[in-house]
Amino acid sequence: MESLDQLQSLLKRLPGLGYRSAERIALHLLVEKPERTGELIVALEAAREKVHRCSITGNITEGELCPIYSDPVRNRAQVCVVEQIPDLFALEKSGAFRGTYHVLHGKLSPIHGVGPEDINLASLKERLNSGEVEELILALSNDIEGEATCHYIQETLVSGVPRPVKVTRIGFGLPSGGGITYADSVTLKSALEGRTVMEED
Amino acid sequence: MESLDQLQSLLKRLPGLGYRSAERIALHLLVEKPERTGELIVALEAAREKVHRCSITGNITEGELCPIYSDPVRNRAQVCVVEQIPDLFALEKSGAFRGTYHVLHGKLSPIHGVGPEDINLASLKERLNSGEVEELILALSNDIEGEATCHYIQETLVSGVPRPVKVTRIGFGLPSGGGITYADSVTLKSALEGRTVMEED
Repeated sequence: MESLDQLQSLLKRLPGLGYRSAERIALHLLVEKPERTGELIVALEAAREKVHRCSITGNITEGELCPIYSDPVRNRAQVCVVEQIPDLFALEKSGAFRGTYHVLHGKLSPIHGVGPEDINLASLKERLNSGEVEELILALSNDIEGEATCHYIQETLVSGVPRPVKVTRIGFGLPSGGGITYADSVTLKSALEGRTVMEED
Repeated sequence: MESLDQLQSLLKRLPGLGYRSAERIALHLLVEKPERTGELIVALEAAREKVHRCSITGNITEGELCPIYSDPVRNRAQVCVVEQIPDLFALEKSGAFRGTYHVLHGKLSPIHGVGPEDINLASLKERLNSGEVEELILALSNDIEGEATCHYIQETLVSGVPRPVKVTRIGFGLPSGGGITYADSVTLKSALEGRTVMEED
């Protein structure tokens, strides 16, 4: 059955889904609960149409700017830099941060051909140059690429901004080689509290 | 974000997906690979439109009748009765069966309020009454509901058909309490080969 096979192969390409789970979901949508297929189509279309990137923070939003950046309670002078949206979600769930975010959508990786122009650094530069930022908290992965991205930001973006910016790096509590997404809230809280000032080399 | 939340909650209701995996898939479709959202919508719409149940066998099909039943090589006199489509897929993958299928889409379960009229038994009765069936292989789960469904089919549907029908039950190799879907091909092959004739009580 061509249409079933096509649906299954697209589902199989989604993160975390294998052959079995794709088959199970496809049959669930077509045989067991066909009414959910329509609901899912509508939700996918609505999300595709409405959700886009905030031009300032790189976070996703339905409005013009991301809801966190637009929130008057959040401190725009404190910017937490993360690799990806799920990292931002994990930090928000920890409730430990009341500043704003900047999502890079990646990290520098010469091996994988990811350079500074491939990640969301241009709008971070703009934010820094606007003089709005007092502290930049780098919440990037505790691995070589995360390290390289931190150094690039400090050396290339922060030097020469109109107003001195304190650059800190989230550190305490994050296990070596681990990412932000799957850390628990307590670990993230202590990592934020135990952040250290980056020294110039 | 309302549209993201809505998409996530619909994804979370799919079998095998929890909160984390639903979030991961939603962000994958909206942020990482937005081009896949359109592909998935098209595939869901095509499958929803084209795939329906075969009126004879209960299997899903894009044509009028199911491709297995329509295949002149397959033996229509031998009918393997299964609970659900994934069971049929698992048996097909084992390559051990060259007859045709009948999908019940459930099993009798008085506790859950599932009676004979709630599962696909009417068209099985028609097949039996047409005189086309010589052997009925009951490949149902090795549990109380499966047992009850087997007995109901033998006592109510098979008795009084125009031509004697041999009723066998798949048995050897299926672990107690287990279903058909997740058994391996070798187990399914030996279960088909070791089928036993059901005795009248």
